[in-house]
Amino acid sequence: MILFVYLENRKNKTIMINIDALFDISYGLYIVCSGDSKKGNGFISNTVFQVTSKPAKFAICCNKNNYTAEFIKTYGTFSVSVLEKDVSSETIGHYGYKSGRDIDKLRGFKVKYGETGAPIVLNDSIAYLECKVCETIDVGTHFMFIGELVSSEVIDENKEPITYLYYRNVRKGVSPKNAPTYVDPELVTKGNLNTSKTYKCMACGYVYDEADEGVKFEDLPDNWTCPVCGAPKSDFEEIH
Amino acid sequence: MILFVYLENRKNKTIMINIDALFDISYGLYIVCSGDSKKGNGFISNTVFQVTSKPAKFAICCNKNNYTAEFIKTYGTFSVSVLEKDVSSETIGHYGYKSGRDIDKLRGFKVKYGETGAPIVLNDSIAYLECKVCETIDVGTHFMFIGELVSSEVIDENKEPITYLYYRNVRKGVSPKNAPTYVDPELVTKGNLNTSKTYKCMACGYVYDEADEGVKFEDLPDNWTCPVCGAPKSDFEEIH
Repeated sequence: MILFVYLENRKNKTIMINIDALFDISYGLYIVCSGDSKKGNGFISNTVFQVTSKPAKFAICCNKNNYTAEFIKTYGTFSVSVLEKDVSSETIGHYGYKSGRDIDKLRGFKVKYGETGAPIVLNDSIAYLECKVCETIDVGTHFMFIGELVSSEVIDENKEPITYLYYRNVRKGVSPKNAPTYVDPELVTKGNLNTSKTYKCMACGYVYDEADEGVKFEDLPDNWTCPVCGAPKSDFEEIH
Repeated sequence: MILFVYLENRKNKTIMINIDALFDISYGLYIVCSGDSKKGNGFISNTVFQVTSKPAKFAICCNKNNYTAEFIKTYGTFSVSVLEKDVSSETIGHYGYKSGRDIDKLRGFKVKYGETGAPIVLNDSIAYLECKVCETIDVGTHFMFIGELVSSEVIDENKEPITYLYYRNVRKGVSPKNAPTYVDPELVTKGNLNTSKTYKCMACGYVYDEADEGVKFEDLPDNWTCPVCGAPKSDFEEIH
């Protein structure tokens, strides 16, 4: 199924983008944290990347509304835990779809404190790295934090990192609203229209499309849960 | 085999990094181009990523010495071709290890000119996108160009993008000297020492390690070529 999305550019002109092309850009999935042993927070990010090798510097993008952005600005540090291919839906749901303004997100997780003092989540992670922020760039809805590498370690060398492609295609995951790769369903027009129904998870935004799945939503078992965040079937609403 | 690398940080203190952790960060592989129908150039990049969704903006990192950096600065545009999993070694060798200062890199390739006028390489590509630069950030050895998305298209929806992990582990590829993820062999200390030999491709820097491959270099057939850039066996030299 080909999707198109209409975007407004700076000159207020409507342009048409084939959004499937954007899904071919490769990303991983990470938990990015900041803070210290007394107070900290983390969120799921897919935009982590090395920008120079000498010295080794990494960039991350963080929505300005993310609670973690406040910590990174205050502490000037961030840690990145690389999530493994079989990361649990609970971990993604917890760090991707809940806010540290409501709960202590690190509570109950296996957390190590790095050389910078930043918390590092070890659950479902195969490696981590830690940076000191050297530059903060305002890129619009997001801050881009560039940090110099302070330490890095492998936790499990026998496991593979999860890729965003795998998350989307196999795990049927979607980007949360604050992600740089978020797709606003209201802006999307489907290239091939059909009469099957779609249902949206009100907890995380995942869309169940009967045409893609080949199974009617009402035929799914009652104990079926959202493959992304684990929310019950009753949290879904039909969308158009 | 665990590798460690010693890096100098800003305060001239030597720090130890487990470089294997950095290889768990996910990237794709792309040809990034700029210019117009009269003159253009492109290079292989692994650092392309979306930084905001509204408007859709993408960032790329480009070494200041890259010839393409001059084109991006002059034209204020760049295109990104997403390379497929089975991209030929010739394409990687051509765009990754040759300079447009010596040859016309686009010659002989299937090139389309986008809405911005920038050349877009279609060979071995499954999708492309095109951006207008809105910000240039000096991140040290590299420029980070941030561009607003102008157009995007899928070329082949049945093929998968190549990931950097696949390129490294299956295709045995390495980062060229100008890449943000380049590893300087002189800074690397091997955790497990052994007495087998290693040979380096003088064309692209790929290192053949007998211990990893299980085959002595001298036992490789005469028509064996570098798996990264296609250079002949005679282009390899023993390194220590």
